[in-house]
Amino acid sequence: MVKTETLAFPMRGNGEIRDITGDVNDNLKKSGLKNGLVTVFVPGATGAVTTIENESGLVKDFRELMEKWIPSEKNYHHNLRWGDGNGHSHLRASLVGPSLAVPVVDGRMTLGTWQQIVLIDFDVRPRSRGIIVQIVGE
Amino acid sequence: MVKTETLAFPMRGNGEIRDITGDVNDNLKKSGLKNGLVTVFVPGATGAVTTIENESGLVKDFRELMEKWIPSEKNYHHNLRWGDGNGHSHLRASLVGPSLAVPVVDGRMTLGTWQQIVLIDFDVRPRSRGIIVQIVGE
Amino acid sequence: MVKTETLAFPMRGNGEIRDITGDVNDNLKKSGLKNGLVTVFVPGATGAVTTIENESGLVKDFRELMEKWIPSEKNYHHNLRWGDGNGHSHLRASLVGPSLAVPVVDGRMTLGTWQQIVLIDFDVRPRSRGIIVQIVGE
Repeated sequence: MVKTETLAFPMRGNGEIRDITGDVNDNLKKSGLKNGLVTVFVPGATGAVTTIENESGLVKDFRELMEKWIPSEKNYHHNLRWGDGNGHSHLRASLVGPSLAVPVVDGRMTLGTWQQIVLIDFDVRPRSRGIIVQIVGE
Repeated sequence: MVKTETLAFPMRGNGEIRDITGDVNDNLKKSGLKNGLVTVFVPGATGAVTTIENESGLVKDFRELMEKWIPSEKNYHHNLRWGDGNGHSHLRASLVGPSLAVPVVDGRMTLGTWQQIVLIDFDVRPRSRGIIVQIVGE
Repeated sequence: MVKTETLAFPMRGNGEIRDITGDVNDNLKKSGLKNGLVTVFVPGATGAVTTIENESGLVKDFRELMEKWIPSEKNYHHNLRWGDGNGHSHLRASLVGPSLAVPVVDGRMTLGTWQQIVLIDFDVRPRSRGIIVQIVGE
């Protein structure tokens, strides 16, 4: 069986990291599926999904790392052509990736205790972001 | 139900980025499946799949970023042992990753408007690359 | 059908890379499923899964790359707050990612000849790591 839903979150952009584990979990419970694969997907080329221990020190480290590797203020070719100033957002999103798959066993996601699912908005302005949560299983 | 197919693309290597969204979509239509998960997988340790807004400025930014982080001309241990000069290709591919999963709803992939599926060939010579497109769904 | 199992490996940490292709393959054979998707998932925010050509030169290159980008000795905010000295482990794991999906066709994973599935333990001390291997298919 396949159950799919869209969840929307008000995001601030600029690398905001949001713990969506509880939302994905509520969606899993609602689906009634007990075993299978949960996929979390961000439609949009400036958002990403991964897992992290979502504590404020590490979130700060993650944001500093991104700024060091892929600075927001560089003259990206993308910015020169399109003028939207979010070349760094695109590059960061393509590297972290738009998709995460988590196995479900007996109705529970198999995440570690300190491992949260996070939605990252690398874009440069606030927006409501819809993400797809799909469960394939039984 | 599970439907799997191999698609082949003539790739030039050296970080060529190819938009394969249309090809994956044609394959999805052919499968007749309406809801489920499309997985795009690159067999081979020097290729990768991700999503990006596939415009030429950003593609140039992506290639420059890779060259800055993982230069092609360094004396990698892999190169010293095997002499094939593609240590950087392997490292880039392992980081971007060989696999991408996109949920399908009502026969359509849930990609964003400016978000394309791209196959990246990080290797150092041209070749035909087969990729796997698998749909698990109903 | 969905088949899920936990496999445990004694890991040394500090970026140890372990080829688990054979273990995942044994598990696939045991499941009896012939077509579908194998997902390998690491519960825990300091482990990761990807594919690589698992030869010792490249493994050394990969470890050096990680050390250059995300040095182990930096004063991460995470370390200052929690004192466990593994800020770099978390950042590396979030970037490489905890999940890998490989399509299965006729009972075989569609990996390339020189492409192995590797479990990476970025944490700073040895431990037994359980990973989830889930097959969704028929």
